[in-house]
Amino acid sequence: MNEFVYLDHAATSWPKPPEVVQAMMDALQHAGANAGRGNYSLAMGTGRVLVRARMALAELFGVANAQDIAFTHNTTMSLNMAIQGTLRPGDHVISTMTEHNSVRRPLEYLRRTKGVEVDYLKVDLEGQLDLQELKKTFKSNTRMVICSHSSNLLGSILPIGEIGNMAKAYGAVFLVDAAQSAGSLDIDVGKMNIDLLAFPGHKGLLGPQGTGGLYISPELDLEPLMHGGTGSQSENSEQPNVRPDKYEAGTQNTVGIAGLLAGVQKVQSLGTENIRKHEWNLIQSLMEGMRDISGMRFLGPAEGVPRTGLLSFVIEGEESAQIAHRLDREYGIAVRAGMHCTPLAHKAAGTLQSGAVRVSVGVDTTEQDVGMMLHAMRELYSGRRSR
Amino acid sequence: MNEFVYLDHAATSWPKPPEVVQAMMDALQHAGANAGRGNYSLAMGTGRVLVRARMALAELFGVANAQDIAFTHNTTMSLNMAIQGTLRPGDHVISTMTEHNSVRRPLEYLRRTKGVEVDYLKVDLEGQLDLQELKKTFKSNTRMVICSHSSNLLGSILPIGEIGNMAKAYGAVFLVDAAQSAGSLDIDVGKMNIDLLAFPGHKGLLGPQGTGGLYISPELDLEPLMHGGTGSQSENSEQPNVRPDKYEAGTQNTVGIAGLLAGVQKVQSLGTENIRKHEWNLIQSLMEGMRDISGMRFLGPAEGVPRTGLLSFVIEGEESAQIAHRLDREYGIAVRAGMHCTPLAHKAAGTLQSGAVRVSVGVDTTEQDVGMMLHAMRELYSGRRSR
Repeated sequence: MNEFVYLDHAATSWPKPPEVVQAMMDALQHAGANAGRGNYSLAMGTGRVLVRARMALAELFGVANAQDIAFTHNTTMSLNMAIQGTLRPGDHVISTMTEHNSVRRPLEYLRRTKGVEVDYLKVDLEGQLDLQELKKTFKSNTRMVICSHSSNLLGSILPIGEIGNMAKAYGAVFLVDAAQSAGSLDIDVGKMNIDLLAFPGHKGLLGPQGTGGLYISPELDLEPLMHGGTGSQSENSEQPNVRPDKYEAGTQNTVGIAGLLAGVQKVQSLGTENIRKHEWNLIQSLMEGMRDISGMRFLGPAEGVPRTGLLSFVIEGEESAQIAHRLDREYGIAVRAGMHCTPLAHKAAGTLQSGAVRVSVGVDTTEQDVGMMLHAMRELYSGRRSR
Repeated sequence: MNEFVYLDHAATSWPKPPEVVQAMMDALQHAGANAGRGNYSLAMGTGRVLVRARMALAELFGVANAQDIAFTHNTTMSLNMAIQGTLRPGDHVISTMTEHNSVRRPLEYLRRTKGVEVDYLKVDLEGQLDLQELKKTFKSNTRMVICSHSSNLLGSILPIGEIGNMAKAYGAVFLVDAAQSAGSLDIDVGKMNIDLLAFPGHKGLLGPQGTGGLYISPELDLEPLMHGGTGSQSENSEQPNVRPDKYEAGTQNTVGIAGLLAGVQKVQSLGTENIRKHEWNLIQSLMEGMRDISGMRFLGPAEGVPRTGLLSFVIEGEESAQIAHRLDREYGIAVRAGMHCTPLAHKAAGTLQSGAVRVSVGVDTTEQDVGMMLHAMRELYSGRRSR
């Protein structure tokens, strides 16, 4: 039994499944050597963990060749590799107001230093964009379309299949930020015309922090963000042009990736569609149980409308930070309050000043956990007078 | 008891100390939440692990303010941050022939794409450079001096204190690659005039893969390599200018860093000077025991001369890869053969064609392990006829 009711899975899933913990222990104790850097049996065992993890991820995301997936430190590194490796001076980018700072900050940096042009498409109060508006935003120099699969504040699910089609029709590179969807929404890079897919290892894929990845279409020749030792073509004074080595300079987080492999296997055994349904049901229960609290406003999709496993809300006259603090201190419930690194989505939702409380569930969250949250919220806020 | 005699500590230390494994387990189970991204108690606990690890590293390296140390994915990322964040078109860099590809490849990339000029100082057969030669290499546009503290092929120890003095006198930024020295040689960034110190977490500091760091002098305003969420100043559309956030975009490898903290504490309790002596004694025993093998040639410093805990060798008429393979298959001894990602050092040693076998020891390596290696080498190669 955990002492906490943990409802911050959108930040990182926790606790990790026992299989993940065990896989990391095994890797630390039996396969700790440095993959690709030695040919003795121990190093080969480590190398096999990386291969198996790559193959499991390729299967999950519909990637034909596992070598097209590079492991990274986190989604932010994946996104920086994708964005900085693609954009050149004079390029135009279309992105959205639902993006996390891990997309916006690299773009604003390139705007300032390289003169890249950026349009952030508006989203409505439910976090949806207008595809007709998107169509009108393409220009002759549109090099890239960047879209979060699901907003980390609003929970809205963007129609990435349709956006991918449009990007393809206009000859733009399509980058999807799957930080909030990998593991809980179906993703198929082929069917959805995704050229670059950035994903975390430690959220919906149930692995540990320090893991993430980037799928890079074989048709793209991305400039690597980092250059260094690859254990291959050592005599070559520049980064070798073979995948995944080209994008994986230096020692990889093999222990973490062993955990990620176990996490992905768990996701595969549960099935992303079952995970999605489970999380959706929990969020619907939350909405149902909290909607009558006076002054309550839910952000993002309305009840009954598809969304991922998170719900952000504000209560008129109450400070978001204070709500989260009381839930933690008085009930041992961990939720998150604040900006969630996505100021533009707050702007869209009208909560840029107030911030919001975000509740997010995971594969192990139960109706009982949600019940605890509802109980706490009713005790704290149901009887209150509106101010 | 391990089934292997592990003599590849220069690639990664293994097995990790039980304290490191335990700390990672604790972090996975009790402090798994996302540091800096929530204010509930669980996330605060995670944040404390990062603070404590930063402070332990600061103490180890003589860093006045722990905030000047940023955590990274690996030394390669640290070096890329340091090199790409400092150099601008028209800059001149002095480096050495002992550098790893994690220094050389970023430099060659910048030479090609930004017109950066690079000089690699020659080293002699023992892996030492000529300080008078270094002095002559400075030019008016020398922006940076980059030096490995110890060669990962030759084991030679470069006089970084003196090089730091010289770099300071010429107004150049001094970057030290401590991949082979952090944890086993004394490093003091203040006394040695080190502006940037790149170090791995998973070698001499005894932590897990997926950890590393970069000390950045407070006097430098390094451009970050990655931009993204920092959990701070979320409304700021660019990377916040506060340390360490500026250089730590995205979710950190908190579980790995918990392990790294335990590793650094182990190093501190043993003392780097004791570790250095222990490793030096083992390498001297190896040299003594193998020097009479016919055709044997040791690379790097001669017997009795200071070096770090590694010894590379070639045997005339024998393939390096075959030596390593036989040690592995017939004796269960893990050593490494090949280029070791440092072709220029091989050039200096005259082993660019043959590669070399590298034996490297760690804190837990015993005289018995060295005895096993010597026994195997004598059985395999002592009676042989020279070809």
